[in-house]
Amino acid sequence: MARILLLGAGRSASSLIHYLLRHAGAEGWQLTIADVDPAHLAPVLSAHAAYAQAVTFDIQQEVQLHGLVQQADIVISMLPALFHLPVAKACVQYRRHMVTASYVSEEIRALDGLAKAENILILMECGLDPGLDHMSAMRALTDIRRRGGRLTAFRSYCGGLLAPDSEGDNPWKYKFTWNPRNVVLAGQSTAKYLENGHLRFIPYQQLFARTTPISVAGYGDFDGYANRDSLSYRAPYGLDNIPTMLRGTLRRAGYCAAWQAFVRLGLTDDSVHLSNPADMSWAALIESFLPAAADSASLPERLAAYLGLDPDGAEMQRLTWLGIFTEQPVGLADATPAQLLERLLTDKWRLQATDQDMIVMQHTLEYELAGVPHRWESSLVVLGDDATQTAMAKTVGLPVAMAVRRLAAGLITQRGVVIPTEASLYEPILDELAADYGIRFEEHEVSLEPAVQV
Amino acid sequence: MARILLLGAGRSASSLIHYLLRHAGAEGWQLTIADVDPAHLAPVLSAHAAYAQAVTFDIQQEVQLHGLVQQADIVISMLPALFHLPVAKACVQYRRHMVTASYVSEEIRALDGLAKAENILILMECGLDPGLDHMSAMRALTDIRRRGGRLTAFRSYCGGLLAPDSEGDNPWKYKFTWNPRNVVLAGQSTAKYLENGHLRFIPYQQLFARTTPISVAGYGDFDGYANRDSLSYRAPYGLDNIPTMLRGTLRRAGYCAAWQAFVRLGLTDDSVHLSNPADMSWAALIESFLPAAADSASLPERLAAYLGLDPDGAEMQRLTWLGIFTEQPVGLADATPAQLLERLLTDKWRLQATDQDMIVMQHTLEYELAGVPHRWESSLVVLGDDATQTAMAKTVGLPVAMAVRRLAAGLITQRGVVIPTEASLYEPILDELAADYGIRFEEHEVSLEPAVQV
Repeated sequence: MARILLLGAGRSASSLIHYLLRHAGAEGWQLTIADVDPAHLAPVLSAHAAYAQAVTFDIQQEVQLHGLVQQADIVISMLPALFHLPVAKACVQYRRHMVTASYVSEEIRALDGLAKAENILILMECGLDPGLDHMSAMRALTDIRRRGGRLTAFRSYCGGLLAPDSEGDNPWKYKFTWNPRNVVLAGQSTAKYLENGHLRFIPYQQLFARTTPISVAGYGDFDGYANRDSLSYRAPYGLDNIPTMLRGTLRRAGYCAAWQAFVRLGLTDDSVHLSNPADMSWAALIESFLPAAADSASLPERLAAYLGLDPDGAEMQRLTWLGIFTEQPVGLADATPAQLLERLLTDKWRLQATDQDMIVMQHTLEYELAGVPHRWESSLVVLGDDATQTAMAKTVGLPVAMAVRRLAAGLITQRGVVIPTEASLYEPILDELAADYGIRFEEHEVSLEPAVQV
Repeated sequence: MARILLLGAGRSASSLIHYLLRHAGAEGWQLTIADVDPAHLAPVLSAHAAYAQAVTFDIQQEVQLHGLVQQADIVISMLPALFHLPVAKACVQYRRHMVTASYVSEEIRALDGLAKAENILILMECGLDPGLDHMSAMRALTDIRRRGGRLTAFRSYCGGLLAPDSEGDNPWKYKFTWNPRNVVLAGQSTAKYLENGHLRFIPYQQLFARTTPISVAGYGDFDGYANRDSLSYRAPYGLDNIPTMLRGTLRRAGYCAAWQAFVRLGLTDDSVHLSNPADMSWAALIESFLPAAADSASLPERLAAYLGLDPDGAEMQRLTWLGIFTEQPVGLADATPAQLLERLLTDKWRLQATDQDMIVMQHTLEYELAGVPHRWESSLVVLGDDATQTAMAKTVGLPVAMAVRRLAAGLITQRGVVIPTEASLYEPILDELAADYGIRFEEHEVSLEPAVQV
């Protein structure tokens, strides 16, 4: 009879909660869901009162955190990444297992020895990206190695987007399905990757201008931009000597060229407060980032000239659609440019109740087998059910939930700080996602010489 | 008999030490110079042993800091700005006066009440920039106000440069006369200023492309780029309602356009470590910041094409002169781009023993007097004596030293955290600089309607 504690019941926890409630009765779990504002859980939990309860929880209250952790056997943290460390420390202290969908930080990695000594598992990076990316990549890599293939290139892209039917008249074809702030600040560090044995670096100011076109059969065209540090994935994937290694993020084709206008203009800077009044208009804000007018050109014309954009082109249409040339107030006093942009986009890119989101993940692996170069491609497309059971919530939450179910049943024997790169961890999760949820990668492989489909 | 403690005897303290030693005997001072490595002071102090001593000092040793402060009446901190706070706290605790050439931080400003209660002075921003900029600007502003003028524009630029005779064949016409790291990282925050009543912002990625040409009679042409926050100077200068307010930094004409190439390439980023070997060549580093070669063009040709530069133009000549297309090793493993660039420039832009540096400061004030628009300009040019008694050391150190002399003589009555914007503080310093050192502003004023020289 496992006691399961979920910390954080925000947007991306809906499918996770759904899964836990579905299995709690049969598995004999006692489920506690702790959230800063658990009122929205009442209707969800009402039919499950025998084994599920919600509690009001504030991560700043250390005594409460320790009390909750002590009363659990497995702790799931869906809190903002910043808060995983105190949770992990409490889990080590009280010898409780922990599962998250977030990246391993240096501080949490440092708990590995302690966690092993206390015989507990801290399973991290078990969501979508990171999570399903590791699992699906490792399944493919393992299969290729088993057949004697030698890897020469690994390229992987993932994006949280809109289902084609929900793109509507939004020329960005994008709405927020997770933290808007992270989207506004995305990429603000030089990206590092490997290409044919050469280190490649792309600084932030060039990142959205140096994209790669990516097509997914049946779903059209995307822009891929490089993620922060692709090199760090070589060791966990066992690809230390691979010549090409690149991970990136997907947006709909055209998004990145328009976003680059914001980068060049300075609207994604989060390091300076602008001393602006809250009732400053968007037009006045844009004006303030331009050189003083030298002629009578309109504000959009001056912006286009400053950035070297076609005044009637797709980038300017996307910018105009957001209302940045209107008298609409920016709404925040003495804010950073990034805060003002986030506020505008949170309004314009809000997911409506009837919207469906879409997760796209694509891996391309190149390898040599018996001297013949091969390429293996796999693509995952997941559509959301609605604005609550989103594709994001499903792909982030279900892998976590499935790992918790197996952990509660005693089927996971790894200990210490772990990510799901071992077959015993990822195979059952990938199989359950495909069988029960239709979340499955479409894979195909080609030998490039001669060009015959295998 | 004042006991004066100087913390930090680095490059910019040479003129300060020279001044203190010159006056110590007559003024009856006991002088203690504390430095992390005071060996270089021995020849300087040997003729002054009766009243001057050097001690080895480590700012991390709090007990030693407190002991030294307790044994002094006035503490001068020429330490890196980071270390002023613990010094200021010790000065408050032991009721000692403190003088620095650095900006007032928020933490030091918060000591104002305590310092006043303890009847001590913490005099900050008493060097060149900040320092002489405040003093000369306030002298001019006070004069204009006294005559009934209404200020409409304040523009001020300052730069630490090379004397024309020392520019040699260096196409940047620049060498380091202060902290190289600060030069490499200069401007990495959106600049804010006011222009004709409009807020203007320039993000880092545009800063070195949006410069203003500045001429100084007899010394030629410069580029001015906007400093971080010009708005913050309105209150201390009493210019709360001025429509135009801009402070900037000077480089020789052409420097900024070439520096912008480094910014756009990504070589000034200090937030990412590149996982590079120390023996990576500069050519390989530059290659790694470019997209993969699409043709057989040379590395300089590809860089020029990527950045849209004329392959034979002045920017490419400046870049080539630095050796960035050669096999020279970068010399540091797993470094940030900014660290690698600083290492290269520290070598190429090293001040030689026979080099003279040059300080240039220029203020332009516009105001209305009896309905007639006027413009007042003042320029300061200071040449270094050699690579030790630099113009930088003179203009940073002498105002500090002169303030200390007056403070020791009981001639400064202000208390609390103060900057030199009051006439009683700056008039004697400006007068002494002009009379004894020839450091004087060339001023001239024009009424713009009719265009008659006043």
